[in-house]
Amino acid sequence: MSLHRLVSRRNLALASTFALASLSPLSFAADAPDLAPVRAQLAAQHDANVQRLRDWIALPSIAAENLNPQEGAEYMAQLLRDAGFDHTEIIPTDGKPGVFATLDAGAPKTLGVYFMYDVKQYDPAEWSSPPLAGELVDKPGIGKVMMGRGAVNQKGPEMAFLSALHAMRAAGRKLPVNLVLVAEGEEEIGSVHISQIVRTPRVQAALAKTEGVFMPSAMQDLDGIITVSLGAKGIVELELIASGEAWGRGPSKDIHSSLKAMVDSPAWRLVKALGTLVSEDGNTITIDNYPVAPPISAEHRAMVLAASPQSSDAEAKKTFGVQHWIDDLPYAQAQERLVSQPTVNIEGLVGGYTGAGGKTVLPHRAVAKIDMRLVPGMKFDDAVAALKAHLAKRGYGDIEVKVTGGYNPTQTAANTALIQSALAVLRGRGIEPLLWPRNAGSYPGFVFTDPPLSLPSGHFGLGYGTGAHAPNEFFLIESANKNLDGFDGAALSYVEYFYELAK
Amino acid sequence: MSLHRLVSRRNLALASTFALASLSPLSFAADAPDLAPVRAQLAAQHDANVQRLRDWIALPSIAAENLNPQEGAEYMAQLLRDAGFDHTEIIPTDGKPGVFATLDAGAPKTLGVYFMYDVKQYDPAEWSSPPLAGELVDKPGIGKVMMGRGAVNQKGPEMAFLSALHAMRAAGRKLPVNLVLVAEGEEEIGSVHISQIVRTPRVQAALAKTEGVFMPSAMQDLDGIITVSLGAKGIVELELIASGEAWGRGPSKDIHSSLKAMVDSPAWRLVKALGTLVSEDGNTITIDNYPVAPPISAEHRAMVLAASPQSSDAEAKKTFGVQHWIDDLPYAQAQERLVSQPTVNIEGLVGGYTGAGGKTVLPHRAVAKIDMRLVPGMKFDDAVAALKAHLAKRGYGDIEVKVTGGYNPTQTAANTALIQSALAVLRGRGIEPLLWPRNAGSYPGFVFTDPPLSLPSGHFGLGYGTGAHAPNEFFLIESANKNLDGFDGAALSYVEYFYELAK
Repeated sequence: MSLHRLVSRRNLALASTFALASLSPLSFAADAPDLAPVRAQLAAQHDANVQRLRDWIALPSIAAENLNPQEGAEYMAQLLRDAGFDHTEIIPTDGKPGVFATLDAGAPKTLGVYFMYDVKQYDPAEWSSPPLAGELVDKPGIGKVMMGRGAVNQKGPEMAFLSALHAMRAAGRKLPVNLVLVAEGEEEIGSVHISQIVRTPRVQAALAKTEGVFMPSAMQDLDGIITVSLGAKGIVELELIASGEAWGRGPSKDIHSSLKAMVDSPAWRLVKALGTLVSEDGNTITIDNYPVAPPISAEHRAMVLAASPQSSDAEAKKTFGVQHWIDDLPYAQAQERLVSQPTVNIEGLVGGYTGAGGKTVLPHRAVAKIDMRLVPGMKFDDAVAALKAHLAKRGYGDIEVKVTGGYNPTQTAANTALIQSALAVLRGRGIEPLLWPRNAGSYPGFVFTDPPLSLPSGHFGLGYGTGAHAPNEFFLIESANKNLDGFDGAALSYVEYFYELAK
Repeated sequence: MSLHRLVSRRNLALASTFALASLSPLSFAADAPDLAPVRAQLAAQHDANVQRLRDWIALPSIAAENLNPQEGAEYMAQLLRDAGFDHTEIIPTDGKPGVFATLDAGAPKTLGVYFMYDVKQYDPAEWSSPPLAGELVDKPGIGKVMMGRGAVNQKGPEMAFLSALHAMRAAGRKLPVNLVLVAEGEEEIGSVHISQIVRTPRVQAALAKTEGVFMPSAMQDLDGIITVSLGAKGIVELELIASGEAWGRGPSKDIHSSLKAMVDSPAWRLVKALGTLVSEDGNTITIDNYPVAPPISAEHRAMVLAASPQSSDAEAKKTFGVQHWIDDLPYAQAQERLVSQPTVNIEGLVGGYTGAGGKTVLPHRAVAKIDMRLVPGMKFDDAVAALKAHLAKRGYGDIEVKVTGGYNPTQTAANTALIQSALAVLRGRGIEPLLWPRNAGSYPGFVFTDPPLSLPSGHFGLGYGTGAHAPNEFFLIESANKNLDGFDGAALSYVEYFYELAK
């Protein structure tokens, strides 16, 4: 999923910031005068753009189900060609193919763009309108929305971006920046092969010339708040597997539990090994030689302190069903912990009999599903290596560390052109955005921000939608809310972004 | 399930003894001369007895599915009346009804009998013949068997016992002992309400006059071995449940795992609490003030040492997929540990996301399914109380201890009439049985062996069958194996048992 949704207040269940900004009216959009022709073209092409989005929604690419990977990549490439990209090509990977595209406008500056063409799985039975139909639905207090899988995550914002290119061309405008775009088809399964796309020499060389890489995103919220995040934690997802076979003790299959009196237990072994990973309260990592999290910077702490008082401690606690934050921290300190501390979390425990009631077995195998969040300064590879070394040193070398996904953290400085241009567009629209040090969730920006590219990376875009990963996902097409832009307003925000970046 | 199956070598997957006795031929059965008329009646009534077993199998009572509890109890009572019991009555409980029956033969001594009328669940798709049909099937090297759910566990042996009564009556014989019988319909779900049956004053008063209480059982094995067990461990089955709601920390529903940085984890809490229950190797109980297991007696140790060399360490290890016993103990010491040591075993771990791969959640709840085996001298109630006090003292008082079943251990002395009569019958058949201190599995003999009754209790009966709790369960009807008795031989063993007990 995109970073932005993890930041958005309207997705509190997934969110990690709860900032409530001043309510700046959007009624006066500070368009530069020369954008009027572009705006007119957006209006003229509105129906075609919306239909183009509907058509795209009708072709879901779902990596987890191996659904339409090639078709999705080819469709993506065609959409880019139609929008004016002069070079497009499919980049094969060991997983689903990527797409690489460039648009040379002869401009001095180049903007990098990151797209995903895949969407999350869905169950049509849970939807109020067919998830592939892209029906227009009236939402009271919001406006006319397009409902469909991928509508906001991420086809809607991406199509708004492409519509900006169509409008510029129809208005006879040259883009003020060149574009270099990479699209992947595995975002929803953890961007497993994105490095294979971005590290392709000609792709990497093209990206190296950019000011940074951004992803189109619907950043607006019902109350007019926009939060600009400067990064995201990294993540390691893994399974710790204790088994009789690997251990050489305990059974190699589930046996009658009475035999515990003479046979060792892999489930107990897992419990004991897990116990060495964190402090008694479960909140401090105790893995030997684990990568050290640098202290939060004064700048980032100030951002948290500035944002925190504007949101509701009580509302956040209610949303998560939490009575106390860790260590009974006040809200601001809890939020500082959220953005600055690495975690080792148990996602799931599975071993032996998991049905109703009991069953007298001694399991041969037990598994802990773990995720470890990393802050900038910590590396994915170092975290995995430390965990393995720790287990080996403590005598648990037989416990398998099965890494299933993840990547490094992402961090971008606030003073980069990529971020400052975003802030300038928002302020031009009368919005004073909140800055947030980094999202506690994760997105694969590392592939741009890590060496060798070491580029800024972030999200940008006006517009509104909800329901990512959920039924009835939608993207706002025609707004009935003064705080929200519809499709055309979202598209126009990208035009404004180009001009800011070109400055 | 019955105790015997947990002792039988042919069910190694569930077994706890692996004794290989001397191979005594059964070709000469040392019947007392005056049993010839009874034997003749068993032959004459053979077809009717087998049909009676088939009819019983056609009416399954399955407590877990609430299938036929009342019908099963009434059918049981009718079978007992037909076999000559002069008093039968249904004993209601808070669960499935029990049956209480007496047969007053005017004899000086009285024998207690324990029946179960319920059977284990079954899936017809897994069976080679319909599980309720009671079809006769030829088993090479074994003989003609009746296949059906409950055939050996426990309707076959019980019907052989009832057939002994039919034969005695038809031969004009008075029983040499009176009978007091209790039957339950919840054996397969842990005998939840057996105390309500046995503690009914008139039932308890009748049982109090008996020499002890035995359960008919098919004790023979393909290689001619018979093991007589003197008891069984007790068991506590429970769930340890850590939850955000009970804790007052952590979430009250699963939330996004990124929030681990500011929210406590009930899953980690469970892991830490579990870690306090056992030693580092998982094999020694470290619950504060836990009931102490008395050391194994010299008599019991001698039984283990006598039996152990006759079985195969390598075969047992292969059966269980085990490379080393606990502490690398030699086989005999491992078996001593099996019979003499209490256990705290993890049956299952369930928390958060348990599907394939990972899912970035911070679970609000995690559960460990636990069984704790008790040896004589330890009490169910004391074990539960110690566990609860331990958790509270360690600061885990919020972790719910949800007891789902269990009962006290069972122990009977070898020098009791109940056991010595069994040994005498077997020796009369030319079999030198192995004695075993107690089964590591569990059966509800406590209800007879605990105060106030404090009676001997055990299993007895010739005959053969396998497949309890599994597809294609059968009971041998006509033997083609010199080591095994068929239905009539099994029935005759109960007649011999009556006469031995009457001595």
